[in-house]
Amino acid sequence: MKRTTRLFRNRAVKTGLPPGALVHIGETPPAGTGITLLRFDEGSFQETRLPPQPDCATLAEGSGVTWINVEGLHDVEAIRTVGECRHLHPLVLEDIVSTVQRPKVEDYGEYLFLVMRLLRPQPENDFSSEQFSLVLGRTWLLTFQEGLSGDAFSTIRDRLRHGTGRLRSQGADYLAYGLLDAIVDHYFTVLEGFGERLLDLEEVVALHPTPQVLVQLNELKKEVIYLRKSVWPLREVLSFLERGDNDLITAPTRVYLRDVYDHTIQAIDTIETYRDLLSGMLDLYLSSISNRTNEIMKFLTLVGTVFLPLTFIVGLYGMNFKDMPELQWQHGYLYVWLVMIALALGMVAYFRRKRWL
Amino acid sequence: MKRTTRLFRNRAVKTGLPPGALVHIGETPPAGTGITLLRFDEGSFQETRLPPQPDCATLAEGSGVTWINVEGLHDVEAIRTVGECRHLHPLVLEDIVSTVQRPKVEDYGEYLFLVMRLLRPQPENDFSSEQFSLVLGRTWLLTFQEGLSGDAFSTIRDRLRHGTGRLRSQGADYLAYGLLDAIVDHYFTVLEGFGERLLDLEEVVALHPTPQVLVQLNELKKEVIYLRKSVWPLREVLSFLERGDNDLITAPTRVYLRDVYDHTIQAIDTIETYRDLLSGMLDLYLSSISNRTNEIMKFLTLVGTVFLPLTFIVGLYGMNFKDMPELQWQHGYLYVWLVMIALALGMVAYFRRKRWL
Amino acid sequence: MKRTTRLFRNRAVKTGLPPGALVHIGETPPAGTGITLLRFDEGSFQETRLPPQPDCATLAEGSGVTWINVEGLHDVEAIRTVGECRHLHPLVLEDIVSTVQRPKVEDYGEYLFLVMRLLRPQPENDFSSEQFSLVLGRTWLLTFQEGLSGDAFSTIRDRLRHGTGRLRSQGADYLAYGLLDAIVDHYFTVLEGFGERLLDLEEVVALHPTPQVLVQLNELKKEVIYLRKSVWPLREVLSFLERGDNDLITAPTRVYLRDVYDHTIQAIDTIETYRDLLSGMLDLYLSSISNRTNEIMKFLTLVGTVFLPLTFIVGLYGMNFKDMPELQWQHGYLYVWLVMIALALGMVAYFRRKRWL
Amino acid sequence: MKRTTRLFRNRAVKTGLPPGALVHIGETPPAGTGITLLRFDEGSFQETRLPPQPDCATLAEGSGVTWINVEGLHDVEAIRTVGECRHLHPLVLEDIVSTVQRPKVEDYGEYLFLVMRLLRPQPENDFSSEQFSLVLGRTWLLTFQEGLSGDAFSTIRDRLRHGTGRLRSQGADYLAYGLLDAIVDHYFTVLEGFGERLLDLEEVVALHPTPQVLVQLNELKKEVIYLRKSVWPLREVLSFLERGDNDLITAPTRVYLRDVYDHTIQAIDTIETYRDLLSGMLDLYLSSISNRTNEIMKFLTLVGTVFLPLTFIVGLYGMNFKDMPELQWQHGYLYVWLVMIALALGMVAYFRRKRWL
Amino acid sequence: MKRTTRLFRNRAVKTGLPPGALVHIGETPPAGTGITLLRFDEGSFQETRLPPQPDCATLAEGSGVTWINVEGLHDVEAIRTVGECRHLHPLVLEDIVSTVQRPKVEDYGEYLFLVMRLLRPQPENDFSSEQFSLVLGRTWLLTFQEGLSGDAFSTIRDRLRHGTGRLRSQGADYLAYGLLDAIVDHYFTVLEGFGERLLDLEEVVALHPTPQVLVQLNELKKEVIYLRKSVWPLREVLSFLERGDNDLITAPTRVYLRDVYDHTIQAIDTIETYRDLLSGMLDLYLSSISNRTNEIMKFLTLVGTVFLPLTFIVGLYGMNFKDMPELQWQHGYLYVWLVMIALALGMVAYFRRKRWL
Repeated sequence: MKRTTRLFRNRAVKTGLPPGALVHIGETPPAGTGITLLRFDEGSFQETRLPPQPDCATLAEGSGVTWINVEGLHDVEAIRTVGECRHLHPLVLEDIVSTVQRPKVEDYGEYLFLVMRLLRPQPENDFSSEQFSLVLGRTWLLTFQEGLSGDAFSTIRDRLRHGTGRLRSQGADYLAYGLLDAIVDHYFTVLEGFGERLLDLEEVVALHPTPQVLVQLNELKKEVIYLRKSVWPLREVLSFLERGDNDLITAPTRVYLRDVYDHTIQAIDTIETYRDLLSGMLDLYLSSISNRTNEIMKFLTLVGTVFLPLTFIVGLYGMNFKDMPELQWQHGYLYVWLVMIALALGMVAYFRRKRWL
Repeated sequence: MKRTTRLFRNRAVKTGLPPGALVHIGETPPAGTGITLLRFDEGSFQETRLPPQPDCATLAEGSGVTWINVEGLHDVEAIRTVGECRHLHPLVLEDIVSTVQRPKVEDYGEYLFLVMRLLRPQPENDFSSEQFSLVLGRTWLLTFQEGLSGDAFSTIRDRLRHGTGRLRSQGADYLAYGLLDAIVDHYFTVLEGFGERLLDLEEVVALHPTPQVLVQLNELKKEVIYLRKSVWPLREVLSFLERGDNDLITAPTRVYLRDVYDHTIQAIDTIETYRDLLSGMLDLYLSSISNRTNEIMKFLTLVGTVFLPLTFIVGLYGMNFKDMPELQWQHGYLYVWLVMIALALGMVAYFRRKRWL
Repeated sequence: MKRTTRLFRNRAVKTGLPPGALVHIGETPPAGTGITLLRFDEGSFQETRLPPQPDCATLAEGSGVTWINVEGLHDVEAIRTVGECRHLHPLVLEDIVSTVQRPKVEDYGEYLFLVMRLLRPQPENDFSSEQFSLVLGRTWLLTFQEGLSGDAFSTIRDRLRHGTGRLRSQGADYLAYGLLDAIVDHYFTVLEGFGERLLDLEEVVALHPTPQVLVQLNELKKEVIYLRKSVWPLREVLSFLERGDNDLITAPTRVYLRDVYDHTIQAIDTIETYRDLLSGMLDLYLSSISNRTNEIMKFLTLVGTVFLPLTFIVGLYGMNFKDMPELQWQHGYLYVWLVMIALALGMVAYFRRKRWL
Repeated sequence: MKRTTRLFRNRAVKTGLPPGALVHIGETPPAGTGITLLRFDEGSFQETRLPPQPDCATLAEGSGVTWINVEGLHDVEAIRTVGECRHLHPLVLEDIVSTVQRPKVEDYGEYLFLVMRLLRPQPENDFSSEQFSLVLGRTWLLTFQEGLSGDAFSTIRDRLRHGTGRLRSQGADYLAYGLLDAIVDHYFTVLEGFGERLLDLEEVVALHPTPQVLVQLNELKKEVIYLRKSVWPLREVLSFLERGDNDLITAPTRVYLRDVYDHTIQAIDTIETYRDLLSGMLDLYLSSISNRTNEIMKFLTLVGTVFLPLTFIVGLYGMNFKDMPELQWQHGYLYVWLVMIALALGMVAYFRRKRWL
Repeated sequence: MKRTTRLFRNRAVKTGLPPGALVHIGETPPAGTGITLLRFDEGSFQETRLPPQPDCATLAEGSGVTWINVEGLHDVEAIRTVGECRHLHPLVLEDIVSTVQRPKVEDYGEYLFLVMRLLRPQPENDFSSEQFSLVLGRTWLLTFQEGLSGDAFSTIRDRLRHGTGRLRSQGADYLAYGLLDAIVDHYFTVLEGFGERLLDLEEVVALHPTPQVLVQLNELKKEVIYLRKSVWPLREVLSFLERGDNDLITAPTRVYLRDVYDHTIQAIDTIETYRDLLSGMLDLYLSSISNRTNEIMKFLTLVGTVFLPLTFIVGLYGMNFKDMPELQWQHGYLYVWLVMIALALGMVAYFRRKRWL
């Protein structure tokens, strides 16, 4: 049931509020809001944990790249403070805290605003879903996540700390690419888990179809719809970034973004394949369940048909007519048994020859 | 039934009339036609209720923004007066009073004409639907609504009266944005109600499927078709406004319109999801109802099959042959009971092992 | 059957003929060919009925607008005469008399050639369909109709005669608009009639589904296909006219054509809705008919199951064993009745508790 | 079966061959390869039958238009000779002899290469299909056909011989148009035949559905797929020609090609309609066959249910209880008959009232 | 089962790795990694087998065309060496060794990177699938294959060795064309094999439908999905190459690439046809299996119905009423037999006349 409700959350509670009103829609993470500031360039790296209401001076741009990450979106005042320091448009802040956004990218000239779904694998091949927003300036990067499913970017942070790879020597756009790449990589883990649930269910469908299978198929279908809604629009987002109409993204980074774009297409392809497989499984289930029932009914009806003439015969010799010669025969009873056995065997043979049995 | 007819209302009554003929198609609101004039700028605010046939001088542009709102469309003469004061094209007036328009936007150079559906939630998660037209000039705004479901813009009017927010300091285009935003917000409330009906019905489908469910599913399907027809074209309307080919809409307002555009896409997404869910529920219903029937038939047939050989046996010993040794046995009757009980138990065991029972 | 054949008429009879060969495909109207000439400007109006073979001088352009209307297309020589006077391309004439054209518009520089379906309501919510062709020059208009279903433009002619409205003061393009508007208005009347047949059938499907319903659903489906084929391409035609790549259509008229375009979109929308409704009705019909049968079968099988043990019992006491103590009991017969009644009631109660009955 | 295989022929045998390798895929016509040369201008006309290996001088351009028609494609050397005289690209020759091409047009600058399917009606409303290739130069035209189904262009040749129509006075492009027009005309004859098979089968479906109908429906469906594959791509071909990016086609001819384009659209429309009709017929068939079976089963079950209580009653009075008062009644036997008749009539009446019978 | 898993392999194992990390996803070929260097121009030809870690000097460009082919992708160090000598982008190398790429083309200015599926026919009309990557420079060509299914380009190598055809005299782009052409040719062989499996199964469906058929249909459906995923994107790849936005591909080669493009379209067409045929077969199977069951059930029910009145009659004369005149008749027993035979024959005749039997 919990899974189902994912498809029904919407922004109706905001009806009647003025634009830019910061209303948090979503769950509150157990850890509260946490703000982390990272500053780095090729030679240096600095990591600071900020208070919930940091002053703008702390958040100012420095030399190198500045990455401010906010986890937990229920404290709208903290979000407002961070956003206003960076002169974000009120609508951007509104979208960040309202966690029912469709993945999209918006170009505000001085910065790009991206929002997408962050899917993480969970036990039993389930997955969690939270909103991830990213604001990319020339030398700075703001990221906002719900913080419900732990740190999704630990490997990125490690690479920054140890200065391995190209992350430290590149600009904020390359860091943004790194985060997008990590997010799409998570999609594949989620899809792999989903694929395993599909394979498990397919085996059940083929071998022991039970009526619950249908409910499970319907659940999986809903999850595919959800995955599709989450991933499909990202394609346009990445296509926009890769086209490079905005000079915030440098040409070398665009090559990497094309790679993420390709991965997104692959993920979408996989989701479409899952949809096709699910509809094939539905057909398979429906016809194997009806087939099973038909087989049983046919068998029982055949059994019934064998007994029909036998019951007629025993009824026949139960009649009380004055004069029924067979009844007086010496071996009448034996003969009637022989006739009945022959009849039964004959019918079974006939059914077999007709391939009904 | 009332709900169904929504899909069938059309403009056939106007066949043969010249273009620009003002014929009201639709219901008459209980309150009659009401015209309200609002004039405001950053410092002042004035609200006047006008007579049904106002003179053009009253309606003239002033300093600041002029918003004329007409509720109730059956009094075509009032509409004509208002329209002619503002030099609206006859086709615009014709569309305003004929409440079967598809949402659209038309650029008449001096003004933009928008028409869309105003959906409002009603008790029992039902919704009402009326036509809302909007004519946007440089410093003025004309709005026309059927007035069947109460005031949809009270929060906007309140914000204007109290001067909170940016509404008072911006132009007519920003006010138009505010109205569009409110309308799309109402869509989400309507969709939430619809989603709840869907969830309720899904529970019924899963637990106690009855034949009425099908009729209800069909009703919901029709409502989704209606919602789709009402919301889908708004996407093009907002995309046109956001592109900004017309200088009546200023660049800052276009950023806000993009936000409304995103919300419309989200609403459309939700509607498409509902469609998918409905078709999944139809499959689920059809197969669970046929499954139930099959289970019952199978059970009854199995019961019948158990009795077949028993009935044969009792018929057998009802025969009147002269010489049937079993009939003379001391405990013949007991033996036949034992045989029959063994047979019945054996068959039940066989059926169980075959997983038929 | 007559209705069905509409979908199958095609131009195969013309195989092997050279281009421009005038072959009439279609029915002959009872009234024969009639040619009417109308000349008018703001001040004057003149209406003449011409002989079947008018000379070109009569048809020449005059001051004001000249409208030549030809009803009945079987007299190909008359069509040829009229066409050649106006220097129409042979392919235009060929298309005019071959009444199986798909709606289209063709730009021949000096004139525009339009062809479309003229649908008219008929008794019992049926409709007739004929081909309407229109050639629009700078100051003249040629129209060709099959003339099978009476005068479709009487209101236009009346407005011209009495000089009401703007028709007399405008050019040939505005007259063409008037005719197109009238044609699309007729579509709505036809669609309304069709919608009523749909509603009637829906009631039958819901209340008394019979096998004939399926045939009727199939008929309606075919008619929707036909309506779609007739109306859908008109959208492109009107979109072409509205774009105004040709200077034969003046800017003010284009505003009106946009209105007709909107109406066509509305008509197409309605047709698509009908298609969706029809497929919903098919689902509804199929499952309610199968539901009814299943209910009956289930009931009968339940009845049968109640009698099975009873029949077994009466068989049991029909056995002829020497020693069957129950047969000797004082009230054996009474007891067996009581047992049987208890058994039957128990089974009915069980079925009820299981909600099978 | 022969019909089915049409869909499965493909070019796999050519795997591993270098480009331009001339391998004939297809059937050999009974008449062998025949090459015909036609030269004509407004005043003169000359028709020559050439040997299988003509020398290039014979094939050279002359004054007026030169049309070389090759029938039979198995003699690849003849094709190579003709092609090399005209400096055709090796890939063009390869496509000409490999008769599994998808309809297409290719612009080689000096000439246009077109390939399409030539469909001809056959007895019993069947049709044949062969490949037709056309190479259009400035003053010459090369055509290649398989020659399996007789001369498809006799009327064109006749018109050339007798100098009627515009064919003789126009260029090679107009001749090419004439051939295309003839080919599309043949499509309509084929579609008409197909439509008749459809109508025949529809009658069978409605009146006497038998299981074979399904196989026939499947056959028709495959043929529609084949027709679609054959005609659909021609639309792009003609659209390319009509756009006139190449100066080999003159403006007046483009008007005529637009006409052929329209006919192709009409043919495609018809094919799509057939597809819709076929799927409607499948629904109709499936539900009428299941309806028939259900009706029979219901009737038989009703009959069975009438006999159930009767059989119980006769069993009842076959019991051997010592004391069964009814058995001693004077008219017991008569009474039991009356009871049984009343019961049977009552049940029939009940079933009738319930509309089950 | 092995076949199924093809659809589920994905790149999830790479989650968390930095971009450009070389991780081999896929199987290891039995033969290990083999690198072959070919250098040729019109006059000379040289073929060398290189060690797993060749030095860059060996791989340098020479006069003529240099083709380096790498078979086996598990030795990522060898791939890295070859790639770095040619200054390939790290993402290119990453894609080459991760064998789950969607077919695509990427333009890196100095070279083009193409990746696609190489399908090869296998026994029993199965097929293998491996990844083929191709990097095209101005005078050099790098190819990478998994090497699981033997040499796919032996005919090309032979043509190069013997200097036949145009391969030796053309540039690297023509060689790349040759490889693409060979790959698409292999598609047709694979599709032919698949088509035969389809035809085989169709025969089974038509003649002896068994429940396994459904599983096989589902398997074939999955394979079609896989084929579609493998071939469809190649269309865009070839369309990109043919458009020739990059000067690495010369105009004469583009003509040949258009030919490969056409073949790809044909292959896609065939795959779509297979999809249609498969869904037709599913319909056919489902309804013939349900038809068979229905026929049997109907027959058995008819048999049962014939015995119902007979069993009633024999029960009737088994009653023990004191006074049943028939029982005393001389030929009562004979008469009852005659009545029963007449009844049975009458019912059979009735069923036959109703066409139920």
